[in-house]
Amino acid sequence: MRNLRTLDDLTLPELQSLLTEADEFAGDAAPVFYHNAVVANLFFEPSTRTKCSFEMAEKQLGIETLSFEVSHSSVKKGESLYDTAKTLEAIGCKGLVIRHPETKYYEQLKGLNIPVINAGDGAGDHPTQSLLDLLTIKQEFNRFESLHVVICGDIRHSRVAHTNAKILEKLGAQVSYSGPSEWMDESIKDDQYLTMDQAVEQADVLMLLRIQTERHDNGSGYSKEAYHHRFGLTENRELRMKPHSIIMHPAPVNRGVELADSLVECRRSRIFKQMANGVHVRKAVLAHVLNLKGEKIYDHVI
Amino acid sequence: MRNLRTLDDLTLPELQSLLTEADEFAGDAAPVFYHNAVVANLFFEPSTRTKCSFEMAEKQLGIETLSFEVSHSSVKKGESLYDTAKTLEAIGCKGLVIRHPETKYYEQLKGLNIPVINAGDGAGDHPTQSLLDLLTIKQEFNRFESLHVVICGDIRHSRVAHTNAKILEKLGAQVSYSGPSEWMDESIKDDQYLTMDQAVEQADVLMLLRIQTERHDNGSGYSKEAYHHRFGLTENRELRMKPHSIIMHPAPVNRGVELADSLVECRRSRIFKQMANGVHVRKAVLAHVLNLKGEKIYDHVI
Amino acid sequence: MRNLRTLDDLTLPELQSLLTEADEFAGDAAPVFYHNAVVANLFFEPSTRTKCSFEMAEKQLGIETLSFEVSHSSVKKGESLYDTAKTLEAIGCKGLVIRHPETKYYEQLKGLNIPVINAGDGAGDHPTQSLLDLLTIKQEFNRFESLHVVICGDIRHSRVAHTNAKILEKLGAQVSYSGPSEWMDESIKDDQYLTMDQAVEQADVLMLLRIQTERHDNGSGYSKEAYHHRFGLTENRELRMKPHSIIMHPAPVNRGVELADSLVECRRSRIFKQMANGVHVRKAVLAHVLNLKGEKIYDHVI
Repeated sequence: MRNLRTLDDLTLPELQSLLTEADEFAGDAAPVFYHNAVVANLFFEPSTRTKCSFEMAEKQLGIETLSFEVSHSSVKKGESLYDTAKTLEAIGCKGLVIRHPETKYYEQLKGLNIPVINAGDGAGDHPTQSLLDLLTIKQEFNRFESLHVVICGDIRHSRVAHTNAKILEKLGAQVSYSGPSEWMDESIKDDQYLTMDQAVEQADVLMLLRIQTERHDNGSGYSKEAYHHRFGLTENRELRMKPHSIIMHPAPVNRGVELADSLVECRRSRIFKQMANGVHVRKAVLAHVLNLKGEKIYDHVI
Repeated sequence: MRNLRTLDDLTLPELQSLLTEADEFAGDAAPVFYHNAVVANLFFEPSTRTKCSFEMAEKQLGIETLSFEVSHSSVKKGESLYDTAKTLEAIGCKGLVIRHPETKYYEQLKGLNIPVINAGDGAGDHPTQSLLDLLTIKQEFNRFESLHVVICGDIRHSRVAHTNAKILEKLGAQVSYSGPSEWMDESIKDDQYLTMDQAVEQADVLMLLRIQTERHDNGSGYSKEAYHHRFGLTENRELRMKPHSIIMHPAPVNRGVELADSLVECRRSRIFKQMANGVHVRKAVLAHVLNLKGEKIYDHVI
Repeated sequence: MRNLRTLDDLTLPELQSLLTEADEFAGDAAPVFYHNAVVANLFFEPSTRTKCSFEMAEKQLGIETLSFEVSHSSVKKGESLYDTAKTLEAIGCKGLVIRHPETKYYEQLKGLNIPVINAGDGAGDHPTQSLLDLLTIKQEFNRFESLHVVICGDIRHSRVAHTNAKILEKLGAQVSYSGPSEWMDESIKDDQYLTMDQAVEQADVLMLLRIQTERHDNGSGYSKEAYHHRFGLTENRELRMKPHSIIMHPAPVNRGVELADSLVECRRSRIFKQMANGVHVRKAVLAHVLNLKGEKIYDHVI
C-alpha cells in the first residue's frame, strides 16, 4: 500500500489484514513505539475530530507531527496544493495526511514521492472513517457475511455512506437505506429502501448519518422534532431493535434529531467505541503506508 | 485528588503537599521524565500565558499534548462541551486541561471518566494561578501565618482575588484590600480596606491585580495616569515598603498603571518568578491528577 | 554565537564552520538526537514555509517546541514584545525563534537572557534564508570565489537580496542584478545591471526573487505574461544558460512569472534542494545558538 486515497487502494485481503492489525492495536497489550518519522497533517477544512484522531494515532506511534496551519499558509499567497505538498516533502516529511474540500484532490499530487493518506476529499471519500466503521462491526460480530446494515439519513450527500455500502456488500453484508426520500440516491433500488420502523426491526447494524447542515440547505422541510419523530431513532423504536443489534453514528451527534439524547450512551451504542477505533485504524494505516519499522522503546506508552 | 476544579478539591494537607512537590520541581536537581499520557488542552477563550505554562509543564513531564483548536472545532457545529470532552476521552486522552468562559463549566462534565484540570472558568476559579501565588509566598517567607497580604485593584471582577483571600486566611495570613471603592466587594469589611499609601507601608506581600479592561467597562473614570497616581505602585510608594516585602502581579502588566515601568523587574518584584512557579505547580498538579508513575528516562531533561 | 539576528553576528570563519556543519546534517549518516531544550517559535506574521522548516529542524534535533499562537496572545491585550519574550524566558524556554514585521525588532530584546534567532524582521534581514542559499551554492561549486551570481527581480524590496549580495561579495563572488529598472536599488552600479538575456548567459547562479505582491503595490505595470516575457526565466532563456549553471528561488514560486512552469523541477533547479537545506542550516544554527550538548539516543531518528 503506497497511499490510502480511497478503499480501492486496498485489495480485500489487504483490508482484512489492516483490520486485524487495527484490532491488535485496540487490544494494546504491548504497544510498539516508532520514532523515525515526521508527518504533516494538512487540514484545508476544519475537522477537529478527524485531526485529533490522526494526531493521537501519530503520537501513540511516536511519529512527530508538523502543525500546518492552513489559514496562515502560503496557500493564501496562491500556492498550489502540489507546491505546498512538494515543499513538505523537500523539508523531510515522510508522509502527508490531507483533508481538502476538493473531490479527488490527490490526483494533483501524482508527482509526490511520499505517501498521502486521505482524511476526506470533498464529497468524495473518507477511507479511514469507513475502516473504523468496519472495525467496529468486525469487533461486534466477527463477520460481515449476511449481516443486515441499514444506513439512515442523508445518503445523497454522505461521502461515507456510498463507500461503506460498496465495501460492506463486497464483504458479504446486505445493505438497506432509510431516511427522507429526497435524500435517497438514484443508485438505491426500491427493495433497499426501508421506513425507520422497518429498519429498527430488521437491522443488525443501524448506521445513523449526521444531518450535515453545513454541506447543503436542509431541504427536508422538517423541524428537528418532526425529523426525529419520522426518521430518527426514538426511544420507542430502540425498544423494537433485535437483541444483539447495535447503533452507530460518525458523530458529532445532533442529540434529539438522529437519535434520542438518552440513547447516545445506551448499551447498544457503539458511538464512542467508533471514535476509539478511529485511532486504532489510523495507527494501522500509518504503520503500513509509512512502512514503519517498529522498535519497542518503552513497555508502557502514552 | 481526582480533578482540580477549585481549591476546594484539596484538603489543607493535600495543598501543602502539592506546594512542597512543586517546590521540588523548582529545585529540579533530578527531574523525572514521564512518558505515558496524552493530555488535551482545551482553551475556549484566549490565554497564551496559561496555555504556554501548561504546555511547558506537560513537555517537561514528557506528557504529549493534543492541540485542540477551538476555533476550528465541532463546537462550531453546535457540539456540547460534554460531547467534545467525551470524544477526547474516547480517543485516548488521559486528562483534560480546560479554560472556558462559563462559570463552573465543569459541572457539565460529571459523566467523564478522565480528570479535568480547571485552567479558569469565567468569573469563577483559576486554581493553578492561586497555587503559583501561594508557592511564591511560601518560597519567600516559608510560612503564611501572620503575613499581611494586601490585594490591590479590581477585587470585584477578579477570580483569583477571592480564591486567594479565602485560602490565605485559611493558611493563617491577614488579608487586606486596596483600590477604587467601586471595585471593592460587599464581602470586604471596613477595616480590611487600605489606601495605597497605607498598603505599601503595611504589606508583606503587595499583590497587584491586572486592570482587566477585557472583562468590564473600565468604570473607574480615571485616566491611566490618574489611576497610577492614586491607586498604583509608584516609584515613591515603593520606597516606603518594608525591607523584606515583595511585589506580585499575575501579568500581563499594564506598565505605568498598576505599577511603575521601572518596578517590573526591581529587586522586590516576583512577577517573573511567579511565571516560573506557574510551570512548577502545574507539573505537580498534572503528576497528581493523572496519577503518573514516574520513570527516570534521561538524567538531563529539557 | 549568542544570537543570530543578522549575518553580521557571524565572523567569516564562524559562517564557514556553520555551513560545514549544516552540510554534515545534510549528509546525515549518524544524526544526533538532542533532548534538553524547549524553544518557542513566535511568528508575528504568517510564514508557513519558514515556520515549518524551523519546526522540522527542532524536531530532528529532539528540541521540543512551544506553539505560540500570536492571534490568541496577550499581544492582543497590548503586551509588549519584550514582556512576551521575557515571559517565555521565565517559563523555561531556552531560546526564541522570532519573525516580526518590525525591522530590527530584536533591539527591543536586549534585556533577555536567552538567545534569539531571527526568522525575518520586516524589510530587514532573514539570516537563515541567506545561509541556506549559501549552503546550496557551496554544495554545488564548493567555492564562492569568482562565481558570478545574478539576482533577478525586485531587489529594492527584498530583504534577502541585500544580505546575500553583501555576504557573497565578501566571500569572493561577483554579484550582478536584473529586473525592472524601477525595482533596482540606488546602491547598484551601472555595470552590475544586466538584462535577463545577458543574465542567463553570464550567471553561474541565477537567483530569482519572488514577486512579493504582498509587500508593495506591483507598480511594474506589467501583466504576468509581459513580466515573464521580459524579465522572467523562459524556456528559451534556460537553453542559453551555461552547462553547469543553476537556478535558485526562495519559493513560493509564481509559476509562469519568475520562471516557466516546466522549469520549476528541471535539472538546473535547486529550488526544492534549497528547502531541504533550510532545515539543515537551521539545525546548525539551533545547535550553535542553544549550545546543545548532543547525545546520541537513537541510531535512526525521524
